[in-house]
Amino acid sequence: MRTVAGGITSPQGFRAGGIHCGIKKAKQLDLALILSEREGPVAGLFTTNRVAAAPVLLGRAHLRRGLARAIIVNSGNANACTGSEGLLAAETMAVIVARHLDTLPHKVFVGSTGVIGQRLPIERIEAAVPKLLQRVRRTGGLEAARAIMTTDLRPKQAAVQSRIGGRVVTIGGMVKGSGMIHPNMATMLAYFSTDALITRQALQQSLKFAAGCSFNTITVDGDTSTNDTVLCLANGLAGNALIETGSAAHRQFQDMLAALCHTMALKICWDGEGVTKVVKVSVSGAPSVAAARQVADAIATSSLVKTALFGEDANWGRIMAAIGRAGVRIDPSRVSLRFDEVAMVKNGQGLGLRAERRLSKVFRRKEFTICVGLGLGRALSEIWTTDLSLDYVKINASYRS
Amino acid sequence: MRTVAGGITSPQGFRAGGIHCGIKKAKQLDLALILSEREGPVAGLFTTNRVAAAPVLLGRAHLRRGLARAIIVNSGNANACTGSEGLLAAETMAVIVARHLDTLPHKVFVGSTGVIGQRLPIERIEAAVPKLLQRVRRTGGLEAARAIMTTDLRPKQAAVQSRIGGRVVTIGGMVKGSGMIHPNMATMLAYFSTDALITRQALQQSLKFAAGCSFNTITVDGDTSTNDTVLCLANGLAGNALIETGSAAHRQFQDMLAALCHTMALKICWDGEGVTKVVKVSVSGAPSVAAARQVADAIATSSLVKTALFGEDANWGRIMAAIGRAGVRIDPSRVSLRFDEVAMVKNGQGLGLRAERRLSKVFRRKEFTICVGLGLGRALSEIWTTDLSLDYVKINASYRS
Repeated sequence: MRTVAGGITSPQGFRAGGIHCGIKKAKQLDLALILSEREGPVAGLFTTNRVAAAPVLLGRAHLRRGLARAIIVNSGNANACTGSEGLLAAETMAVIVARHLDTLPHKVFVGSTGVIGQRLPIERIEAAVPKLLQRVRRTGGLEAARAIMTTDLRPKQAAVQSRIGGRVVTIGGMVKGSGMIHPNMATMLAYFSTDALITRQALQQSLKFAAGCSFNTITVDGDTSTNDTVLCLANGLAGNALIETGSAAHRQFQDMLAALCHTMALKICWDGEGVTKVVKVSVSGAPSVAAARQVADAIATSSLVKTALFGEDANWGRIMAAIGRAGVRIDPSRVSLRFDEVAMVKNGQGLGLRAERRLSKVFRRKEFTICVGLGLGRALSEIWTTDLSLDYVKINASYRS
Repeated sequence: MRTVAGGITSPQGFRAGGIHCGIKKAKQLDLALILSEREGPVAGLFTTNRVAAAPVLLGRAHLRRGLARAIIVNSGNANACTGSEGLLAAETMAVIVARHLDTLPHKVFVGSTGVIGQRLPIERIEAAVPKLLQRVRRTGGLEAARAIMTTDLRPKQAAVQSRIGGRVVTIGGMVKGSGMIHPNMATMLAYFSTDALITRQALQQSLKFAAGCSFNTITVDGDTSTNDTVLCLANGLAGNALIETGSAAHRQFQDMLAALCHTMALKICWDGEGVTKVVKVSVSGAPSVAAARQVADAIATSSLVKTALFGEDANWGRIMAAIGRAGVRIDPSRVSLRFDEVAMVKNGQGLGLRAERRLSKVFRRKEFTICVGLGLGRALSEIWTTDLSLDYVKINASYRS
């Protein structure tokens, strides 16, 4: 497997592009289109938020049909909490694109991201689609990635390639994630394209696996926005032998997709709102994976831990406190804490001022790992978190203004 | 019932004071003592954090004996994650005071708040106690309240008075809460004194009730620090007939304590780290109180909601998203949202731009109520939250420097 330049249009037969249709102010790109020459199976994952946006409701319905040719995404308006009018607007987006492509609406997926609860100006989207269709091209991936941004600082795309059964298979992707990862109700949209020939079932399994060890380790379960969506389209143009579930080729494809998702997840971290640090929280010695994850979550989501990361204040006591309130039956006298190479807590006790001085240096790093040992079992869990900076508050205090 | 000036020394027979013993830098007060002329029953509540600090471990043991004469509290060092040496230090604090008062160590309660994981300089406390004992006085309540502060901006004290069975009974209190309330692992210490004659059981029941409708509606369950402590001492000097559980006098006393705790809780909110707004979140129409509380928590603890409060950005979509991810089975099409007098969402849909303009004005208020209707049942829950400001990050990023 190798990383290649490019993104959503790197696999054969995909084109993309973005334009300004008038949802965002100024002349910012706010409408993206991804097109495949040929329709193919599609895999999808959607938000678990019970207040799901119209495009998510529509996407779930379309996913049941299992085929896709195109994805249209607007930014600047989430089309959430917009009732039946909003659902109609999402459907209209699919219908317009389908009409122009001479295909069926359920083969067009729709995405929206931006402010919740405002009417989507569907007439502007409708008017812009013909121009957008002329604009999609083999080199338009970056432009499309740009058109789905909200508070993102940079467009995010990547692609990987590998030989599967003697043929070169490519997976490309673009994501939009407005970053602080957690607590994060800001929308994450991730779109993947591949020229692999693969069954719908194998594709869905791969996507679920890949998201589980990437996006779900940065976006903590249940804390999802109204619009979160991950989709993967496969058009089969690579000419490989059909990838079916359980085969070696399937495992190979799945690993490719997982690697790409992981790259994308870290891009979201680094492009987070006001992020200056990305820190891995690794909890081991837990009685179960769920317990390990619970402790890791408590640390990774603590505002006090996150502000200490930002301030480069080696305040490890806040991590001990987070462990203690995680809701897991721990034995404080067995807990150990290590930060990269510096051991700081053993048997629940601090190792003194010399260790603290060494710790201060670790806290000055852009990336490091917090290793928690619970001394209770053999299960472990890893998640990534970021710091809580002044810029996070500045960005989020004035999102709509 | 009436509010009276004063605090912990307002009831008869209580003295207090504070000095600088050398834990904090500069000449800041860092050691407080509360003394009752006569010993009496004591009620207590402690953190549910599994990493409990040494003074909490000691306090739980002392509480089983049920009598108290004094409370000694240091700030600047939490004496948490300090192992057996830390426990010995906490015991030593009690022993020194007990020796000077010619009483038993289990009648002295100990509190600590500040940085976790550093050795408590017990020798400085030991050296300062004789001077502190000379300093305690009837008018020393405010000084004691000042001596337990960490990031608090103001000392916080209050007192209430009422006739119970023909005699004037007074309850006074002081609290220390480093405020963002939630997510809040910063220590809350609350100490109450009363001259009521009351059984230990009635006192404990009253304290539990009072904390449940005050501190526990601002500090969300389970998200407690290593040191959180609430204590109430009763010396019986008011000369009232003994208050026993279940009596009318008990209910009266309980309501007094609850009112005082509520006042104190709001003082903590307002004195929070960087707080510019205190907002009540009221969830009704829930299928159960637990469900109502869960939805209220999700809103009150969302960084995106809290930054929107700070920015006075009437971004109600973030509240809808928080409701949706709260983990409660809601029906989005039944949800309503009201902010003070302004209805903004009905049947899950926004009520348009005119309502939004009115909403902007509500968001400019220092205090307001977010009313959520779930339309599913009759249960309700109310909690208080604060905004997440630039100053919160500034204060917490450099807490130890």
